[in-house]
Amino acid sequence: MFRYKLTISYDGTLYHGWQYQPNGIAIQQKIEEALSIALREKTSITGASRTDAGVHAKGQVAHFSTLQLLDTYRLLASLNGLLPKDIRILSLESVPLTFHARYSAHSKIYHYHLHLDTVPNPFKRLYSTHIYFPIDLCLLRSAASRFIGTHDFSSFANEQHLGSAKQNPIRTLKRLEVVEEPGGVRLEFEAASFLYKMVRNITGTLLSICSSKLHIDDLAPIFAAKNRSLAGPAAPPQGLFLIAIQYPSTENLR
Amino acid sequence: MFRYKLTISYDGTLYHGWQYQPNGIAIQQKIEEALSIALREKTSITGASRTDAGVHAKGQVAHFSTLQLLDTYRLLASLNGLLPKDIRILSLESVPLTFHARYSAHSKIYHYHLHLDTVPNPFKRLYSTHIYFPIDLCLLRSAASRFIGTHDFSSFANEQHLGSAKQNPIRTLKRLEVVEEPGGVRLEFEAASFLYKMVRNITGTLLSICSSKLHIDDLAPIFAAKNRSLAGPAAPPQGLFLIAIQYPSTENLR
Repeated sequence: MFRYKLTISYDGTLYHGWQYQPNGIAIQQKIEEALSIALREKTSITGASRTDAGVHAKGQVAHFSTLQLLDTYRLLASLNGLLPKDIRILSLESVPLTFHARYSAHSKIYHYHLHLDTVPNPFKRLYSTHIYFPIDLCLLRSAASRFIGTHDFSSFANEQHLGSAKQNPIRTLKRLEVVEEPGGVRLEFEAASFLYKMVRNITGTLLSICSSKLHIDDLAPIFAAKNRSLAGPAAPPQGLFLIAIQYPSTENLR
Repeated sequence: MFRYKLTISYDGTLYHGWQYQPNGIAIQQKIEEALSIALREKTSITGASRTDAGVHAKGQVAHFSTLQLLDTYRLLASLNGLLPKDIRILSLESVPLTFHARYSAHSKIYHYHLHLDTVPNPFKRLYSTHIYFPIDLCLLRSAASRFIGTHDFSSFANEQHLGSAKQNPIRTLKRLEVVEEPGGVRLEFEAASFLYKMVRNITGTLLSICSSKLHIDDLAPIFAAKNRSLAGPAAPPQGLFLIAIQYPSTENLR
């Protein structure tokens, strides 16, 4: 048995997210179809992050297992030939059988893009969220810093689908940086793992603070209440990019 | 009678070009529909450049005339409310009746984007052309310089639709610069006017030279032959952006 790691970039605009959905095409499904054709055997993959509909990725990671010893260079070319152009396999490498795309990850990085052009830029509409109000960078940075560290993030997590086990709501946000970019700002999130919709809910809450719908001092009681309805609404999916999944060096997995 | 100038940005991906087409939706048509609703009278516009299907614009210009004295600030907001998000009116201003979007222009600027990532970037697929072969910047710049100046560009122009008058094939290319950008290069074209598909045909010919299908010394005989079939194929529309239309100051139009 051999295990392989895929690093994947996709434009999520036309898909119903990473994972199978009853009413739409998932990115996982497109990659499994291409792999099953290329390997001539039904192959399923396990992804590191279940990105939602409309969310993009520059560094999603997935793994699969097979009894075949593969020519990774040729398979990479075949997969990109079979896949639609909005999904690209960036790299394909052999990994130890102990490697697991989700459980081996020690860090995930997401970026959320906001733009502030007077008239919304049509080229950013699918890749960034347009903000109509001015942003006080000092306030945004100050509010963002309140999320860093280990907290019960219940107020910033949505329930996952019916029937799924309740997650431990304690998470450690290692980094939440506000970086200026042309025409807007980018929020950079890093954590070992995130709760469902946590990045979009934190972003929406930060925007509620910037637009004075919430006050920065409301954050402490919102955290304490463990009640999703008190925080801001989820920011739209379009601005969100899964940037990278980081793993310990493969030596440590052997 | 009053005349108004629109500056427009659009993502051309979903449209059959600027101008009416029997089999698809044109950008001009979407703007005329929005204007006709906002002004409560059937209104037609004249654009400076007839961009092809899939070609984008960051600074298209059009004009229209009406008997109404308009509140341009309110109309701008109404139009952007009525238009799809991939078409945005960037500005709307009153101009003298002598202003004509096409005939008053003294310069048009187009950019053509090429990217050279090992695996094509899914986020560039609609906005840049992917090149599989390495580009010799020195050769590209040298070949580009041969197009600058006043020439008979017949070999780089497509016939316009049946029945349209034959254009004078002499044009003056003021500028053709090769500018490096992250992951690729951008060709910057500037001229008072261009022949039909001239930018894409020149780009395609430059790419034929970079991939050794043509030699740089073939350019002189290709120009001399005045025969479209001797030059390279048109580069795809996705990489092309209409950047700006430049006019003399409005004082000179009065």
